[in-house]
Amino acid sequence: MQRYFLTPEAFTGDAVALPSDIVHHIGTVLRQGAGYEMVLLDGAGNEYACVVTSLEKKSGVAKVLSSRRSETELPIDVTLAYALPKGDKVELVAQKATELGIHHLLLFESSRSVAKWDAKKVPKKVERIEKIMQEAAEQSYRAVVPTCTFLTSKQLSQQFEQYDEVIIAYEESAKEGEQSALAKILNRLNPKQRLLVITGPEGGFDSGEVTQWVEAGATACAFGPRILRSETAPLYALSAISYALELAKE
Amino acid sequence: MQRYFLTPEAFTGDAVALPSDIVHHIGTVLRQGAGYEMVLLDGAGNEYACVVTSLEKKSGVAKVLSSRRSETELPIDVTLAYALPKGDKVELVAQKATELGIHHLLLFESSRSVAKWDAKKVPKKVERIEKIMQEAAEQSYRAVVPTCTFLTSKQLSQQFEQYDEVIIAYEESAKEGEQSALAKILNRLNPKQRLLVITGPEGGFDSGEVTQWVEAGATACAFGPRILRSETAPLYALSAISYALELAKE
Repeated sequence: MQRYFLTPEAFTGDAVALPSDIVHHIGTVLRQGAGYEMVLLDGAGNEYACVVTSLEKKSGVAKVLSSRRSETELPIDVTLAYALPKGDKVELVAQKATELGIHHLLLFESSRSVAKWDAKKVPKKVERIEKIMQEAAEQSYRAVVPTCTFLTSKQLSQQFEQYDEVIIAYEESAKEGEQSALAKILNRLNPKQRLLVITGPEGGFDSGEVTQWVEAGATACAFGPRILRSETAPLYALSAISYALELAKE
Repeated sequence: MQRYFLTPEAFTGDAVALPSDIVHHIGTVLRQGAGYEMVLLDGAGNEYACVVTSLEKKSGVAKVLSSRRSETELPIDVTLAYALPKGDKVELVAQKATELGIHHLLLFESSRSVAKWDAKKVPKKVERIEKIMQEAAEQSYRAVVPTCTFLTSKQLSQQFEQYDEVIIAYEESAKEGEQSALAKILNRLNPKQRLLVITGPEGGFDSGEVTQWVEAGATACAFGPRILRSETAPLYALSAISYALELAKE
């Protein structure tokens, strides 16, 4: 069933006014009208089974049939900090990380990031990524749309105290055979706690960056003994988080 | 350090004759010559630290300095059976699945596969995918290059008896809230056992296909409560397998 995100304010009574982009999607893209059933989400964890009661060219109304708390969110709050990679990998990772349950995406330039974002273009790029994440959230049955923020490497480490745990994907850890740090951290996390996962650009992080973050409280982890590409490491971490906290937990 | 795959037959003594593609890569792409150190792999799990002793235009010789068993392979033998998706997703999945440790990739047309492969073009397409997997194996420090086979849906289910466990990514299981089948299977797998993971095209498998496979001994599993895209599901499964068997195992 088609799913659309609105804002919590839209759900004040049994009738919900549909914004113009959703009216366009239902009427023009899907060629549906009154009687069309769908799920509307408030983006704050609630989902509403609804039916369209009227649909004009630019406006429409739906009636709420039932509501419930969504059960598709990870039990912990996960932020991915991804060092800018080359090309359009950031879009691939934004989409996949949304499917895999992140709540926030932080983008930053690490010392080995080849890609640089011109400050003037940041708002437009962030907007585009948030659009990709909203579509991915709708398709993957998420109840929340992740946010995207671009920040400096310094701002990133200043945020560490907001998290219960901070992990860094560090390929030197993989080469040295470190294999249990990630599992130890996932095992001690409790529901609602906040986890920050930092993953690197092509070539990984330099040791100076990692040392600085470890001194600020982060843990360097291997994601298995193989060396993963820049865009694969975050997907590994997020899949492992879901597996450990949603499937393997007793 | 650069890594290259040769065949087991190449390692008969202390001197290894370098094939022309590797000679070209070292001499022309990397602009290196005698004295260049690298890792040569026999594709059967052994890696050799080597130094180039001579390099001509089309031939070259390296000397073996030391050898060891590689420790980057998953403890179990994993085959991914991926129902043909649209576009070039199959190449993305072949690359990422190699990084994440698969040993064999089986490609097949499921009843909802929109993409069809013309029988005449299959050998060329398989060759291209094996090339992608070889490059990914070198980059990710794998000790083995996965193989790729194209087969029919019927041939796929006839192979089930070769595996200790067969799991199917089934989104209806996710919607119904099934959450522990994958963990139960991963927990009972022992080293060297063989696991087949079957994942679907856009829109997933139809229930008839899944019923047939379950009757043949497979288990339908959810990969978390969210609905994953065709190309994300195999990466989730492979990351979970690595996490469960390489990082979280006591």
